[in-house]
Amino acid sequence: MSAATFDAIIYNFGLFAVFVFALTGAVCAAKKELDIFAFILAGVVTGIGGGTLRDVLLNIDQVFWIEDPAYLSICIFASVITYYAAHWVVHLDKFLLWLDAAGIALFAVLGTQKAMLFGAPPLVAVVMGVMTSTIGSVLRDIIMQQRLVIFDPEIYVTACLAGSTSYLALIYLEVEPLTATLIASSLAFALRGFALALDIRFPSYQ
Amino acid sequence: MSAATFDAIIYNFGLFAVFVFALTGAVCAAKKELDIFAFILAGVVTGIGGGTLRDVLLNIDQVFWIEDPAYLSICIFASVITYYAAHWVVHLDKFLLWLDAAGIALFAVLGTQKAMLFGAPPLVAVVMGVMTSTIGSVLRDIIMQQRLVIFDPEIYVTACLAGSTSYLALIYLEVEPLTATLIASSLAFALRGFALALDIRFPSYQ
Amino acid sequence: MSAATFDAIIYNFGLFAVFVFALTGAVCAAKKELDIFAFILAGVVTGIGGGTLRDVLLNIDQVFWIEDPAYLSICIFASVITYYAAHWVVHLDKFLLWLDAAGIALFAVLGTQKAMLFGAPPLVAVVMGVMTSTIGSVLRDIIMQQRLVIFDPEIYVTACLAGSTSYLALIYLEVEPLTATLIASSLAFALRGFALALDIRFPSYQ
Repeated sequence: MSAATFDAIIYNFGLFAVFVFALTGAVCAAKKELDIFAFILAGVVTGIGGGTLRDVLLNIDQVFWIEDPAYLSICIFASVITYYAAHWVVHLDKFLLWLDAAGIALFAVLGTQKAMLFGAPPLVAVVMGVMTSTIGSVLRDIIMQQRLVIFDPEIYVTACLAGSTSYLALIYLEVEPLTATLIASSLAFALRGFALALDIRFPSYQ
Repeated sequence: MSAATFDAIIYNFGLFAVFVFALTGAVCAAKKELDIFAFILAGVVTGIGGGTLRDVLLNIDQVFWIEDPAYLSICIFASVITYYAAHWVVHLDKFLLWLDAAGIALFAVLGTQKAMLFGAPPLVAVVMGVMTSTIGSVLRDIIMQQRLVIFDPEIYVTACLAGSTSYLALIYLEVEPLTATLIASSLAFALRGFALALDIRFPSYQ
Repeated sequence: MSAATFDAIIYNFGLFAVFVFALTGAVCAAKKELDIFAFILAGVVTGIGGGTLRDVLLNIDQVFWIEDPAYLSICIFASVITYYAAHWVVHLDKFLLWLDAAGIALFAVLGTQKAMLFGAPPLVAVVMGVMTSTIGSVLRDIIMQQRLVIFDPEIYVTACLAGSTSYLALIYLEVEPLTATLIASSLAFALRGFALALDIRFPSYQ
């Protein structure tokens, strides 16, 4: 498989992951019985919030969804779908968790990659990766004024962290970026999937 | 009327709109019986929050109120007035709604205009316009930990959207910017005013 | 004392202040019995949130903790310490208030200084100074969904404001920056310490 084909796959999978994030955001608006603009706000914030904060902090010339508005379109599309088919989407809750797992696994790695590309030191790159995957849901919960899902003692941030640090390690071991992306994302997804399947949680402080 | 005169009118009306936004922010602090710094925080965040997010996302060299601190001064001024004359300002509630309507109508158009000027694609420009008008109130409600007013099923975001998209359409139809600004703002104001006068609301999802 | 020595002292004291801010953030996570990632999120946000917003608004090339990840490391370190020794850290509550007072006194001045360096007008520089000291705690309280500590009618913002404006005044009077930093920080610390010692509060609007 050529690098260009691989890039196209990653790009399309990225768009799909943003779509899934936006769905999980819009579902929150559905549960609160809000109007369509609230669906869109929740969908957009959840879909692109993490990547936006990453790009703003890295002071990148153009935030990714300004450069390529397809990300924004797909968030709005996901929100409108949810508005008109919320009963149907809400029933997908369990399935969405798995798609979300794939999304955070990918973005933890892509976020780390982008931060490294813009010269961020290793620790910062890891934090950026985790942030890309998780801040969208934090912003969603703040806007929706509900308990932060990220505070649930699940293997969620851990999975992102595994993806992000393993990608960094693989790059330092001079593994090819394409291969490193695949391995690190798979590791993050496996960890999150494992937790989902077995309902494993992290101990909280008492 | 010359373009310079028109620009001066828009500038002064913009300052006045920020003043009104700040008043609505400070009124929230009054209702919660907070101290003067809380009034100022609420006033500043509501007054310039939307435009600030727009400028940060567009990665503009200088955020508008850093380039021209008059916007900041006027927010602080509005907050201090409200602190010392809150009983009086609170009674203006109904009147403030109408001034706020004029403010969001203008900023939806100016936000779209600025985004286009900085090369944002059409969809992004529309989102930036709506954001300029509405995010200040979202940030205010988050800080004040009260239900987001933007989630009320009123014709509020719709009016901003009408102003923003109609401005975009008029520019594509090669209408002069000054004329387009006037028409689009008037349309947004009319829509919001219509909803205020007749107490029309948007259906929410059930 | 040479300017280089002085800079080194300021730098190390700055790191220590960020450490203290992060401790106060992580303590909130401890009180809510959250998991270690919540401790880190709260610690990082409280520790570097104010300076991050300052740098993003000033559109500085590299946010301070991306340029020098020591700030990020120390926040994570403080959060992990708190997680494993929370009972001990929580008992330091009173002492932490005094360290926090020293921290906000320093950052109000350093924030103003940085804003002036990047060409911000006086009013903006003062707001940036106050923001550097206080926004970390605002973000912490938003994430933790608790009443904003900044809204308590204590002499807190006042102390920051005193530090920030007195620094500005001293620079206009052509006092040397090192001396101005010392005097203005001491003034802010004295004011906050005075309020802490005597339990003085600010009148709130009624």
